[in-house]
Amino acid sequence: LHAVLWGALHCRDSILLMRPSTEVSPVPVQVVVKDPKGLLEKRREFLPGVVKPFKEVIRANIGDAHAMGQKPITFIRQVVAICAYPELLNSDMMPEDAKQRARYLLQGCNGGSLGAYSMSQGIDRIRKKVAKYIETRDGGIPSDPETIFLTTGASDGIVTIMKLLVSGHGRCRTGVMIPIPQYPLYSAAISELAAVQVNYYLDEDNAWALNVPELRRSLNEARKRCYPRVLCVINPGNPTGQVQCRKCVEDVIRFAAEENLLLMADEVYQDNVYAEGCQFHSFKKVLFEMGPEYSDTVELASFHSISKGYMGECGFRAGYMELVNMDPEVKAQLVKLVSVRLCPPVTGQAVIDLITDPPQPGDPSHENFIQEKQQVLSALAEKAHLSEQMFNSIPGFQCNPVQGAMYTFPRIQLPPRAVQAAQAAGQAPDMFYCMKLLEEMGICVVPGSGFGQREGTYHFRMTILPPLEKLKTVLENIKGFHQRFIEEFS
Amino acid sequence: LHAVLWGALHCRDSILLMRPSTEVSPVPVQVVVKDPKGLLEKRREFLPGVVKPFKEVIRANIGDAHAMGQKPITFIRQVVAICAYPELLNSDMMPEDAKQRARYLLQGCNGGSLGAYSMSQGIDRIRKKVAKYIETRDGGIPSDPETIFLTTGASDGIVTIMKLLVSGHGRCRTGVMIPIPQYPLYSAAISELAAVQVNYYLDEDNAWALNVPELRRSLNEARKRCYPRVLCVINPGNPTGQVQCRKCVEDVIRFAAEENLLLMADEVYQDNVYAEGCQFHSFKKVLFEMGPEYSDTVELASFHSISKGYMGECGFRAGYMELVNMDPEVKAQLVKLVSVRLCPPVTGQAVIDLITDPPQPGDPSHENFIQEKQQVLSALAEKAHLSEQMFNSIPGFQCNPVQGAMYTFPRIQLPPRAVQAAQAAGQAPDMFYCMKLLEEMGICVVPGSGFGQREGTYHFRMTILPPLEKLKTVLENIKGFHQRFIEEFS
Repeated sequence: LHAVLWGALHCRDSILLMRPSTEVSPVPVQVVVKDPKGLLEKRREFLPGVVKPFKEVIRANIGDAHAMGQKPITFIRQVVAICAYPELLNSDMMPEDAKQRARYLLQGCNGGSLGAYSMSQGIDRIRKKVAKYIETRDGGIPSDPETIFLTTGASDGIVTIMKLLVSGHGRCRTGVMIPIPQYPLYSAAISELAAVQVNYYLDEDNAWALNVPELRRSLNEARKRCYPRVLCVINPGNPTGQVQCRKCVEDVIRFAAEENLLLMADEVYQDNVYAEGCQFHSFKKVLFEMGPEYSDTVELASFHSISKGYMGECGFRAGYMELVNMDPEVKAQLVKLVSVRLCPPVTGQAVIDLITDPPQPGDPSHENFIQEKQQVLSALAEKAHLSEQMFNSIPGFQCNPVQGAMYTFPRIQLPPRAVQAAQAAGQAPDMFYCMKLLEEMGICVVPGSGFGQREGTYHFRMTILPPLEKLKTVLENIKGFHQRFIEEFS
Repeated sequence: LHAVLWGALHCRDSILLMRPSTEVSPVPVQVVVKDPKGLLEKRREFLPGVVKPFKEVIRANIGDAHAMGQKPITFIRQVVAICAYPELLNSDMMPEDAKQRARYLLQGCNGGSLGAYSMSQGIDRIRKKVAKYIETRDGGIPSDPETIFLTTGASDGIVTIMKLLVSGHGRCRTGVMIPIPQYPLYSAAISELAAVQVNYYLDEDNAWALNVPELRRSLNEARKRCYPRVLCVINPGNPTGQVQCRKCVEDVIRFAAEENLLLMADEVYQDNVYAEGCQFHSFKKVLFEMGPEYSDTVELASFHSISKGYMGECGFRAGYMELVNMDPEVKAQLVKLVSVRLCPPVTGQAVIDLITDPPQPGDPSHENFIQEKQQVLSALAEKAHLSEQMFNSIPGFQCNPVQGAMYTFPRIQLPPRAVQAAQAAGQAPDMFYCMKLLEEMGICVVPGSGFGQREGTYHFRMTILPPLEKLKTVLENIKGFHQRFIEEFS
């Protein structure tokens, strides 16, 4: 079969993909291992009869909260259930505010059904809610529903905007600046569109800070080989977990303005900020606080999602983006582009309504909603802190504070003999390490080479999502594994 | 804002897009009109105070059954509701088989939640159901779950496969053969990928038949300018409504084999066959009945969807594709490609389970399921027949039998003076006609120029979805409108 291979597509987030454990009988467990940089996909089978020294595989490789046992927010699921089956408007299992909201949402659906297409840009009344939510978040800075697009998850929005902006042809290929380490969606999309990936490095020694001199170095070098047009920022950081301070956001905006770059702000972890003294500053808000010199000119696309935060509803595939200072002609093109896929999943759109307009004080579901939300967020904060502490107690590990998001990204020292062994096995050293961790301990994490890292440094990304007790065991097991690994290769 | 406009992206299905009527207050109604061939998007506003000679806009422009009042299948919605809110396993409003199915589906979800990501290819146990469904449909011809990919609607699958196969660069741009008239997703995707659109014309004089000599003519001409590699077939046809006979399918397969073309079979209307003596023949089945000479070599991708058929669950955005004779290396690439978007909406995946494995005789929901299904399909059959008859009774209309799918595509004679008036207005003549129909009668249909048609012929596509009594009125109104239109421009 003749296929044009669209560049070496990096694989996703989960470089170690496992068949969901709920789907397999105990033997054989099949583990699909993907080489993040190459084209090879290796399959290893844990053959029947091979005894493994662990009882279950811990999938700490992907930001998938519900898969790790996090419970859905009750109000969200009640409303979705009623919308799906409106007979439940007559059920006494459903609180009055959930019924009311379901009625409101169904009125916004064509034919009063979740099963009808919506406008490609998303249901009007939900986009209005999103705009209002953003206004409140940003202390009253206006947001126009016409600049809001509902999407099939944040990744859909990010790829769509890149498609619109990026040219892989002609003399001036578009350069897209991305942080290293990065979330691999970016490199994959850039590769798919035949654009040019322009790396800027986050400062690991300063808690993964984003520094403007490094942006400038990266940009100047890139201008020799492409036409840099887009600057991607992930805040809070994935996989790095830093939360940018206000000054940093301002510096980035000033830089984008000077260099005429469109800012793509991946802000899907905006609800996930844990560290004392850290606060989420949206690019939109800072942009407008900097005055019309910036707010009238800098092009900004900001992305959000229902997959992270406290709700973790990844499976519903929904998110939204807000576009600031987008040219009306380009917007018209964007509307056409999104209309090819008809519309984002309507059920997911409904969930967006619920997280942008949660139950208010006095509503029957308010108290429970707040309690469930706080429980998730405080558990995450505790686990972020625990993971960082525990990793920093392992000799050879160095872990920055997990200020936000859902991941630790410790740096690990690997002995030269381990590096040689990896090379002999045709693997990146951190992939070699992660594979051994998986095979020996059943702990699935993602090697740093899947996200990018400074030459000669090694990392892995692990989620903070396993339940607390399980997470403690996992961290203990990694400690033990690492000591044995060091002994073996010293 | 510097944007590379990805070709003149055709807009979707609904070239006349209306804000959903449920979303707008009576005045102003805003109608967004898109020029299918150009870049302009015009906005016309029905200004406050302008009295229109109709009370509501009939959206007969898009295959959106629920928006036209079709009721969802109860069993589907019950299971979805329980999956969303598993507390409903305790509700006596839900039948036992719906509960059982919900339990089964949740066991297939990571963490037992619709909110977790699934495997990018789709949930294992649902792909197995799909394979079994295809086997039963095709009289026992085997189907391998590993060749099934669940998708975010059929359009997602179609675009993904094209992405994998098509190259817009280098000396040999890939040619993609598509029927004319076609569903505009194809031209849009081809344009987006910078591939070459290769038109073959369906034979309007023979009920829109697909003829091999025309395929050959088209292919030979295309070989002068590109490298044709893909042959797209839509059966039952959209917008044309023909259902291919077995011999026709066989001829197409033989042609694809001879010419080494990959077959993309858009079979989303496979449940929508109405005409006496017509039957759906899947490309997969015919391919295998033709023997190993064909079944071992011809590459086939077949697409299906939950958006059409009797369920019409467009808003859930789900479908699947089956890939026959796909090279394992290409499949590995495909897995990477789909993994960038993480996974199809899990709720939609659940609906796929329900339509590929509906309640069986003896199950509490069986009788009702069958009754609801039959009701939808027989109403559609009646409306297909009625529309055809009615159109053929209008002087200047000529309408082929609606053997399947959900649309009529009548050919209309337009007087030379109407053609001139359209040109003066800068519109395609059938767009001019459809705009007048919308403005004067509130009936929204899609001009044939959005789908492609032979030079100098004019058509429009209208769905058969409005409720019977409303459809009758619409057809009467079109009749009256056409007579006045002819008088005005004679």
